[in-house]
Amino acid sequence: MARGETSLRISAIVMLVLTACLVAFDTQTKVIILNLEKKATYKDMKALQMLVYVTSAAAAYNLLQLCKHTTVSCTEKIKKGSSNNIYMAWICFLLDQVAVYVTFGTNCAALEGSMLAVTGSEALQWLKVCNKFTRFCDQIGAAVLCGYAASILMALISTISAYKLMRMYSPQRFLTLKIR
Amino acid sequence: MARGETSLRISAIVMLVLTACLVAFDTQTKVIILNLEKKATYKDMKALQMLVYVTSAAAAYNLLQLCKHTTVSCTEKIKKGSSNNIYMAWICFLLDQVAVYVTFGTNCAALEGSMLAVTGSEALQWLKVCNKFTRFCDQIGAAVLCGYAASILMALISTISAYKLMRMYSPQRFLTLKIR
Repeated sequence: MARGETSLRISAIVMLVLTACLVAFDTQTKVIILNLEKKATYKDMKALQMLVYVTSAAAAYNLLQLCKHTTVSCTEKIKKGSSNNIYMAWICFLLDQVAVYVTFGTNCAALEGSMLAVTGSEALQWLKVCNKFTRFCDQIGAAVLCGYAASILMALISTISAYKLMRMYSPQRFLTLKIR
Repeated sequence: MARGETSLRISAIVMLVLTACLVAFDTQTKVIILNLEKKATYKDMKALQMLVYVTSAAAAYNLLQLCKHTTVSCTEKIKKGSSNNIYMAWICFLLDQVAVYVTFGTNCAALEGSMLAVTGSEALQWLKVCNKFTRFCDQIGAAVLCGYAASILMALISTISAYKLMRMYSPQRFLTLKIR
């Protein structure tokens, strides 16, 4: 299982870095009227900016967990059964949960912003933007897909940390440890 | 624990229904120029429409789980230890996970749409809408807050289903049941 978790974390890091790079290095310049040029970057929309920051932070977090994992395996620690190690497993579990929810939420926000740029909104009188900046929008679309792949991988990781933590408890007595 | 789960589910249902109602029954009419009136409803933005559908579906799902819970308690079933009941617990766990991620994601998308309506976007030449429809926007803001409260409650519920499922497994042998 430790090997499975390690490979999941590495895949998640790759996907998160890919998402951040696809968004951060995406630019397109178009001539609007005569000499008036407009350059589209991720800074045009707050949700895309957030996506770059959050995916970078999540990649760094997973890298830290990976380093911790290779130096002192989390499972070995818990097997000794001291209550300190259970606290450690709880912290791992909670951090993994926070990481996956924040990444997934930011990705959903970026998707909504991008969809508005693709479709526009007649009711709100917001114009489509993606008919002008097609290549820019395609790249953002790919980034959002990678972000969802990363979210799924991180959800699997958080299920593994839940498994590693909660199988320590007795199936009959509420929140009683059972090291067997 | 069963009582805790029941009260969490009831609170989540209340919050989800409140979110759906706050969004669905939110309308405001304003005179734009002379006799030209504009009515703002949740149908003006796809993300708000999705929020109404998803929170209603999530409330219905939690109600079903609550009914199932009161007729045949999930815990009792697992204690008998047959593999069928473990499958049942896995299905409960996975459904709870899907429910919380979908609700949370839709809420984040609605928040991004609402934030764009509040701030507008200079780069994309999208005008602010909330300076005209202030009361409408305030009510949507309250709905999004309720949606986040519901998401947190559902995340707690999914942690409880993870706990109920995974404490059945042996802490040493991988995916081996431990009925003791």
